[in-house]
Amino acid sequence: MNAISRLVQPRSVAVIGASADGRKTAGRPVAYLRKHGFSGDIYPVNPRVDDIDGLRCYPDIASLPAVPDVGIVLLGAERADLAVRELAERGVAAAIVLASGYSETGEEGARRQARLVEAAGGMRILGPNTIGLVNLTDNIVLSASGALEMDRFPVGSIGVVSQSGGILGALLSRAAPRGIGLSKLISTSNEVDLDLADFVDYLADDDATKVIALYIEAVRNPEKFRAAALKAARAGKPVVAFKIGRSEAGAKAAVSHTGALAGADRMYDALFRQVGVIRAQTFGDLLDIPAALATGRVLRGNRVAILTSTGGAGTLVSDSLGVSGFDTPAPDPDTAARLRALQTGDHAALDRNPIDVTLAGLQPDLLRGAIRALLASPSYDALTIIVGSSSLAMPELMAGAIQDCLPESDKPVIAFVSPHAPSVAALLTQRGVPAFAAAESCTVALAGMLHHARWKAPEPSAPAAPVDVAGLPAGALDEAQAKQLFARFGVPCAGETVVASPAEAEQAARALGGRVVLKILSNEITHKSDVGGVAVGLAPEQIGARLAAMKDEVQARTGIAPRRFLVQEMVAGGTEVIVGMHRDPLGTAILVGMGGIAAELFKDTAMRLLPGDGGGLGREQALEMVRELKSWPLLDGFRGRPKGDVEALVSAIVAFSRMTAQLGDRLIEAEINPLFVLPAGQGVRAADGVAVLGAAA
Amino acid sequence: MNAISRLVQPRSVAVIGASADGRKTAGRPVAYLRKHGFSGDIYPVNPRVDDIDGLRCYPDIASLPAVPDVGIVLLGAERADLAVRELAERGVAAAIVLASGYSETGEEGARRQARLVEAAGGMRILGPNTIGLVNLTDNIVLSASGALEMDRFPVGSIGVVSQSGGILGALLSRAAPRGIGLSKLISTSNEVDLDLADFVDYLADDDATKVIALYIEAVRNPEKFRAAALKAARAGKPVVAFKIGRSEAGAKAAVSHTGALAGADRMYDALFRQVGVIRAQTFGDLLDIPAALATGRVLRGNRVAILTSTGGAGTLVSDSLGVSGFDTPAPDPDTAARLRALQTGDHAALDRNPIDVTLAGLQPDLLRGAIRALLASPSYDALTIIVGSSSLAMPELMAGAIQDCLPESDKPVIAFVSPHAPSVAALLTQRGVPAFAAAESCTVALAGMLHHARWKAPEPSAPAAPVDVAGLPAGALDEAQAKQLFARFGVPCAGETVVASPAEAEQAARALGGRVVLKILSNEITHKSDVGGVAVGLAPEQIGARLAAMKDEVQARTGIAPRRFLVQEMVAGGTEVIVGMHRDPLGTAILVGMGGIAAELFKDTAMRLLPGDGGGLGREQALEMVRELKSWPLLDGFRGRPKGDVEALVSAIVAFSRMTAQLGDRLIEAEINPLFVLPAGQGVRAADGVAVLGAAA
Repeated sequence: MNAISRLVQPRSVAVIGASADGRKTAGRPVAYLRKHGFSGDIYPVNPRVDDIDGLRCYPDIASLPAVPDVGIVLLGAERADLAVRELAERGVAAAIVLASGYSETGEEGARRQARLVEAAGGMRILGPNTIGLVNLTDNIVLSASGALEMDRFPVGSIGVVSQSGGILGALLSRAAPRGIGLSKLISTSNEVDLDLADFVDYLADDDATKVIALYIEAVRNPEKFRAAALKAARAGKPVVAFKIGRSEAGAKAAVSHTGALAGADRMYDALFRQVGVIRAQTFGDLLDIPAALATGRVLRGNRVAILTSTGGAGTLVSDSLGVSGFDTPAPDPDTAARLRALQTGDHAALDRNPIDVTLAGLQPDLLRGAIRALLASPSYDALTIIVGSSSLAMPELMAGAIQDCLPESDKPVIAFVSPHAPSVAALLTQRGVPAFAAAESCTVALAGMLHHARWKAPEPSAPAAPVDVAGLPAGALDEAQAKQLFARFGVPCAGETVVASPAEAEQAARALGGRVVLKILSNEITHKSDVGGVAVGLAPEQIGARLAAMKDEVQARTGIAPRRFLVQEMVAGGTEVIVGMHRDPLGTAILVGMGGIAAELFKDTAMRLLPGDGGGLGREQALEMVRELKSWPLLDGFRGRPKGDVEALVSAIVAFSRMTAQLGDRLIEAEINPLFVLPAGQGVRAADGVAVLGAAA
Repeated sequence: MNAISRLVQPRSVAVIGASADGRKTAGRPVAYLRKHGFSGDIYPVNPRVDDIDGLRCYPDIASLPAVPDVGIVLLGAERADLAVRELAERGVAAAIVLASGYSETGEEGARRQARLVEAAGGMRILGPNTIGLVNLTDNIVLSASGALEMDRFPVGSIGVVSQSGGILGALLSRAAPRGIGLSKLISTSNEVDLDLADFVDYLADDDATKVIALYIEAVRNPEKFRAAALKAARAGKPVVAFKIGRSEAGAKAAVSHTGALAGADRMYDALFRQVGVIRAQTFGDLLDIPAALATGRVLRGNRVAILTSTGGAGTLVSDSLGVSGFDTPAPDPDTAARLRALQTGDHAALDRNPIDVTLAGLQPDLLRGAIRALLASPSYDALTIIVGSSSLAMPELMAGAIQDCLPESDKPVIAFVSPHAPSVAALLTQRGVPAFAAAESCTVALAGMLHHARWKAPEPSAPAAPVDVAGLPAGALDEAQAKQLFARFGVPCAGETVVASPAEAEQAARALGGRVVLKILSNEITHKSDVGGVAVGLAPEQIGARLAAMKDEVQARTGIAPRRFLVQEMVAGGTEVIVGMHRDPLGTAILVGMGGIAAELFKDTAMRLLPGDGGGLGREQALEMVRELKSWPLLDGFRGRPKGDVEALVSAIVAFSRMTAQLGDRLIEAEINPLFVLPAGQGVRAADGVAVLGAAA
């Protein structure tokens, strides 16, 4: 067993600073361990006490008769590091440090935290400032918190890791009365050593855990998190995460244009999506979605049958499902016939969905028959059963009838309980039918299941030889240099020539053929068109005079006399797209957005993180990004427009992503804006762009 | 007392078809009335029984010793109309018809329903297919439904009207254990006579009701609803509505472009906004928002203090508030000093928000002091108190301490209960501190309060003399006619001349001056530019030849030879806007959207219903619409653009709305697309448009 396994499933526990007084916080860990029948050894350590409730108490860590798997340190922050050092010296696998007063309190606390880390050496630490953990599977409580203690735990298959202790307690407290079973509860808190990712990794291997639920304040080690989440995905274990801090997104200062469009919270969306983590939008969802996933049932499509004995509640659920893109079709003729054969009354409304069995009363046989018919129907992927007030009279019979049908299909079966009836909901959940008190929870739970079933790990990008980047300049590149950089990696750029005089400009224009664009070339002036530094549609014979005039105008408006100019092929008839990158503590993201005002006014951008393997994005991911844009129809033949060259756009995005991956930290900023996407078969052209490079390593 | 008052507060009730068997549905109404101590007269009617539980039973309605206020009809749909006729003949104020089997079941049911209406004559009907009503204020149950019955009602000030009986039962069942008090519960169901609006009107006058909650499937009489809602608003009673059917919005077929952008559900948004109804987005919100409003406390701004004894839960609430635009600023120095003076511990985190009093423990005096300081602070408009697991030990003390502080301020005080503790939440709610189990519910409740406090009835449009509409053509107008119509009402249009020949075109172009636009003029061909029927930037000397070529091209592509053309002033440098109208069962809406692709791809439109007084929109409303657009920045100096002439745009919208109001049903369709909004001071120009007129009345 590795150290984390020994921490979560210890065979022996030392409790440093244990009190003999069970009413005191320091008295709780020993009391909790014993109360739940911990079968391993418990070593209380306290120099002032000889025994605690019949257990021998040791004066210090050195006196312990054997090396425990875990030490729970109950001492304050001033002394905890001494105990940690001694535990480490004895070879303990892991220490749980409950004290607060570390980095969360300021500089002095941060120094204390550094001392703690140093004292631990190779020993693993959970905390500090943690409320510990509960291994419900094995009935082991390693905590001094009243919030993690109850007489009987709701044992099940959901493993929870939380960066907040209080939240962990709230989740436990909320799961139990709902009949939602948990396997392990771990509060990581300050994460001086063991973090979220370590426990995701652990739970991916834990046989008792089928679903992992995370309460996240910040992912401190994105690469480790990514690896752990992908491991869970490979093990077929869904990971559901609620991430706090959504409202801070707007506050993030950003350098480049695409940076402003990223926003820290969207980075989490990208990260989660790419590693198959289902994002819970509300704290409530963090129980609802795992509760549904824990059944292990599989949602293969979006068609839901609603079986109800009360009209209004059926409509509530159907409406909520509809808003989220689920379909609630009427029964197919065969299924309708099967349903009708069950029904004795006159007023059957069995040919619509919600399928209303109000008037038939609630006979278990009818219920069983209807459920079987709906689960067997090829028209439905899932079944939602509405529990109305009339169903409350005989909950056991009803729950039993539903449960009987579960083995015949692996389609999801969930329940919406319309009146206030928490005990009925808990009964159903325990019988394998996750029950919810809100229609939106039913929808969210099914959406989570669908997300899990449909998710596939992104294809890695095709291997590509590194591009020769010798001789690249450093600093802010000018427009021509930036496009030369993009072109090296395979992004097609508009044809252009750098010129310094009217004569050179005319010669360049004649060489390009047709009408051209003239721009100043400067890495000092960023908004060229605002200062009269851009002219379009020029004929070769006009360009010389125009260059001279432009020089004067720009100088008059900026005080800077432009010395170099760009004569560029004029690209017409395309759709303008922006491709950029954004660096964030979570990783480096590639962004795609429509050009012009849409990206900014309507926040119409798509984002993906570069994979951790040093490569770029795969073509599928790039295509997915483009199709995700609200303005995708513009590239797809909207209102009679020609379809855009999406293949070429995908190639350009992949090329840009490879450039970003290969240059790594050396690439400080880069953006193609605009990239013209021409009609299908005609390719794309980068017409302008920026790049800032650090010095070569 | 009018008939509705007599229905809700009857002094005498006849129960037609009462059964002596209390276990049967027909036995319930008498049993319920007596159980809750109804002090008026009860007249059971049943020819086969002499007395029911000691009450004299009458063989028929004719034998009743006096005219009851209300008759509850328990007979089936086949016989209910006979009883209704007799009740009406005796002069009963209102009958409650519980039977189902009416219009909800099909044609035969619809015929039954018509017979019922005819039988009732002037007597008011609640139902049919209703589960009746409960007057909680006076302890009167007029129902045979188990779902509306409980031993003790949660009496309070929220009046509920529901078009679904099952939902009414669910609301009652959910309110009671949460300590949320109700005044009246009414199920209107088929609404053959009395509808939602009648009861909103009634509750607006009801002294026991402070807040009105509505469960709506469809508003059948929008004008009556509008009047009732505005009456409630004038009475200072917030109305909160949950409207089902959001997902059907997309299914609505629409004729005109702007019609497609309207969508039935958005019409409800517009209606609710214009009459001050707060829309509940989820069924859960339909209790949460009224619970907060029922306190009568006033939210004057968006700054919320969060007082917590558990870190994680405080963050949850702060995050949720932040996402919805609330501000959670740190305490101002005076308030921080007041808080510090209360604190004894070292680790106080009283200078941030959430204000964390974890380490001080939960001493009622500290709690009282902190609440007083925060309510007195000029930095906060509301206070949210977080109840953590440590607060659960002494709920009475905590609730008492909070309650003590309420009279000192009228700022809202709400609570978030982090662990599962429904009884603590109910206690707080009963003590005047609405308590919620979800952070989002806290946010939604405060948002509802803010909406209510900020709402003002829209200014009526300034009175205007009717426009002379004599001589308008009927049918689909051509482009020139449509703009002439708009111009009559004061919408500035681009200068233009209708021509038939190259020579006329050249003459018209010279008269307009500068370059011009040439278009075919046809009410057969709608997408002119798709068939080569538009040319821009033409000089007078070019236009003759261009007209001839256009004629040939359009004929070749459509088979129709255009005979008339429009020579139009070329408008440049403006922002394109669409102004349109849309008719819906709920009323006539005016729509404004950005032109081009934004309105369609990004659903960027704003909508207002015409007021019921026959006038158009007021200027304030028109300006509000424009500012509501996501693309509003385009008119407001986005990225160095010149500001648009918003005054002129507002005038054009008001003019268009007056046209729509004055023409009424005669105007079948109308849209200006595009309306060019020129830089400030330069006005607007309608450049194209459609209008379809019916024959003059």
